[in-house]
Amino acid sequence: MKIDGVAYRSVWTDAEDGWSVHIFDQTALPWSLKILRLTACDRAAHAIKSMQVRGAPLIGAVAAYGLCLALRADASSDAMERDAAMLAETRPTAINLRWALDRMLTRLRRTPVADRVDVAYAEAAAIADEDVAQCEAMGRYGLSLIEDIAASKPGQRVNVLTHCNAGWLATVDWGTALAPIYMAHDAGIDLHVWVDETRPRNQGAALTAWELGSHGVPHTVIADNAGGHYMQHGRVDMAIVGTDRVTRTGDVANKIGTYLKALAARDNNVPFWVACPSTTIDWTVADGISEIPIEERSPTEVTDLTGRMADGTIATIRVAAGGSPAANPAFDVTPGRLVTGLITERGRCDATAAGLLGLFPERG
Amino acid sequence: MKIDGVAYRSVWTDAEDGWSVHIFDQTALPWSLKILRLTACDRAAHAIKSMQVRGAPLIGAVAAYGLCLALRADASSDAMERDAAMLAETRPTAINLRWALDRMLTRLRRTPVADRVDVAYAEAAAIADEDVAQCEAMGRYGLSLIEDIAASKPGQRVNVLTHCNAGWLATVDWGTALAPIYMAHDAGIDLHVWVDETRPRNQGAALTAWELGSHGVPHTVIADNAGGHYMQHGRVDMAIVGTDRVTRTGDVANKIGTYLKALAARDNNVPFWVACPSTTIDWTVADGISEIPIEERSPTEVTDLTGRMADGTIATIRVAAGGSPAANPAFDVTPGRLVTGLITERGRCDATAAGLLGLFPERG
Repeated sequence: MKIDGVAYRSVWTDAEDGWSVHIFDQTALPWSLKILRLTACDRAAHAIKSMQVRGAPLIGAVAAYGLCLALRADASSDAMERDAAMLAETRPTAINLRWALDRMLTRLRRTPVADRVDVAYAEAAAIADEDVAQCEAMGRYGLSLIEDIAASKPGQRVNVLTHCNAGWLATVDWGTALAPIYMAHDAGIDLHVWVDETRPRNQGAALTAWELGSHGVPHTVIADNAGGHYMQHGRVDMAIVGTDRVTRTGDVANKIGTYLKALAARDNNVPFWVACPSTTIDWTVADGISEIPIEERSPTEVTDLTGRMADGTIATIRVAAGGSPAANPAFDVTPGRLVTGLITERGRCDATAAGLLGLFPERG
Repeated sequence: MKIDGVAYRSVWTDAEDGWSVHIFDQTALPWSLKILRLTACDRAAHAIKSMQVRGAPLIGAVAAYGLCLALRADASSDAMERDAAMLAETRPTAINLRWALDRMLTRLRRTPVADRVDVAYAEAAAIADEDVAQCEAMGRYGLSLIEDIAASKPGQRVNVLTHCNAGWLATVDWGTALAPIYMAHDAGIDLHVWVDETRPRNQGAALTAWELGSHGVPHTVIADNAGGHYMQHGRVDMAIVGTDRVTRTGDVANKIGTYLKALAARDNNVPFWVACPSTTIDWTVADGISEIPIEERSPTEVTDLTGRMADGTIATIRVAAGGSPAANPAFDVTPGRLVTGLITERGRCDATAAGLLGLFPERG
C-alpha cells in the first residue's frame, strides 16, 4: 500500500545489501514513520515480542526473515533448531508464527548447511509473496459482500465495523479484513468504517485509523464500548475482523473484545465476517476456548498509555488509580456459531468443520 | 464512605455558612482529592455538565442543591423555572436529574417566595438522605445474592464484574451497584471485583478502582474488551452495574458498553443484575432503545486522555491517529431480556413491566 504516494510492504529486505530486513516500528505509529533495520535474529524476536510488528500474517513473515538472519550467523542444524524455537516462543496465540517457522524448517532441514542462507531467504520471500496474493484474493471475496450491501441500499453509505488492525500493517500488504474495504473504496463504493480503538494497545485508533486516513477511506474512531449501540441503531451493515488463529471447527481467536462484537452482531442481525488466510487455520485444534493459549501481556499496557502531547512530545501517562492491579489478556475466542462466515483465499465458507473442509478438502 | 478513615458524602453543605455546597472534583480523581465549593447555580450546572460530579443519583442531588443556590440569588417564580430548566438540560440521559428538579419544583411552586430558600435546602437534604437510605437498602438486597454465590462455592473467592462507576461517588453515599460489594466485603466474604476501565472516560479505572482500593476491596482493572473472555472461562460469578434510566418495561440505559457485557453474561449464564433506585425509573418510557435520548459527548474524550506522568505532572495526550474523527455516544441501552433482575430499594424484581409493577403497584 502507499504512504504519501510511495508503495511499501510492511517487511522487506534491503535493496542494497540484499539481506538486512526492514520493518516499520509500529509502536511509533501514528506519531512517526520509523523504519527499523534488523540485522540479527534476536532483534527480529524482539520486534515481534514488543509488537514493533504485529498481526498474525506479518508475525509469520518476520519470523521467517528472523530465521534467515539467524542462519547468516550460524547455519548449523543445532543453532537453526534453537533459534527457530526461540522465535516460536515470542508470541503464543498467532498460529502463523508456528506455521511460517515449520515451513522454513521443513525446507531447511533437507538443505545442506552451505546452501541454507540462500534457501531461507528464498523461502521467506515466497512466504511474503504468498501472503500478499492471499490478501488480494480475500479482498476480492470480501469485496463482493460489500458490493451486495451497497446494491441493497442504493444512494446510501455502507457502514463497516472493524476491530484491532487487520490492515496492510498486519500482513505483508493489503491486509486481511481491510483488503475488501480498500478494494470497495477504490471501486467507488461510498463506504465508512467504524474503527474500534481496541484497548489496551489501541491498534484501531493508532494503526487502522492511520492506514484508512492515509488511503483516504472515511472512518470514525469509537471506544470499543460503542459498537453494540451503533448496531442496535442500524448504523452497522457488516462487521469484518482478522484473526490470529482459527480452529478446524471455525472458532476464531482474535484481539480481545472481538467476541463482544460478534455477540452484538448476532443480537442485531449484522453479518459478522472473519478474514482468514489458510495460514491462520490450526487444523490440530477443535475447541478454541479450551485449547488456544491466550497471551497474557503486561498490566502496564492497561494502566499506562502513550501518546502525543500538544507540543508534539511523546509521553506516557498512568490512567488507572495508583496501586490498583490490572490484567491484560490479549485475545479472546469467538465461537464459530457467532461467525457469519470465513473469508479465505479460496473463497468464503461457513465457520464450521464442514465449511472449512469444503474449501480445503485436502485436510479431510 | 471513608477516605483515610474520615467519613464523607459526595455532596454536602458547608458546616459553617450552612448554604454553600461542597463536592469532590471527580475529574481530578484519582490523582488528587480536590473539594470544590459551589456558591452559584451556574457553577453547579457546570459541575454536572463537565462531569466534576456524575452518576445518576448524585447528579440529581447536586441539581437539587444547584436550585437552592439559584433561589438564594433570585427566588422569584420566573427565575426559579428558568434556572431549573437550565439545570435540567445539563445532561440528557440520567432521569434522576429531571426527577429531582421536578420534586423540588412541585414543592417550591406552592411555597411563598420568602420561604423558598429554606424549603429548598430542606428538600435537597431530604433527597440526599433518601438516596443514602435507598443505596443502603439496595446494598442489603444485593448482598444476599453475593452471599448465595459464596455459599455455593465454599472456600472459593466470589468474582463480581462491574462497569463504569456506580459507587459512592456516583450517589450521595454507598453507591448503587457497589453497595452490595462493600457490604459483602465488610461481612468478611472473600470477594474480588473485575473493574471495567470504562472508556472513554475511564470511570472504572479512575473512580471505581480508587473507591475499592480506598476501602480495601480486592479488585483488578481490565480493558472493557476483556470481560467476555473472563466470563467464557468461568471467572465471573455475577455482573452488577448501575443505571441512568430504566424504562417501565425494564430496559436499562447505562454507560456505553454495558449492553456488550450483558450479552456476554447471557451467553455464559452469568447473572447480570442492575442496581436501580426508584428515582432512576422512567415510568413514561416503554422502549429504551428508541425512546431514551443518548448523550453524544465530545470526540476529544475518545481521542485524548489525561493521566499522570512518571514525574507526577498531569498531562493530556492524543492517542488516536491525527486527523481521524471520533464519535462518543455516552450510554447504551440493554434490553430487559438480557437483565437477570433489578435491585431496588424495595427489593429485587424481574426487568419487566410486571416485575416493576410488582414492587411499585402504585404505578399501575
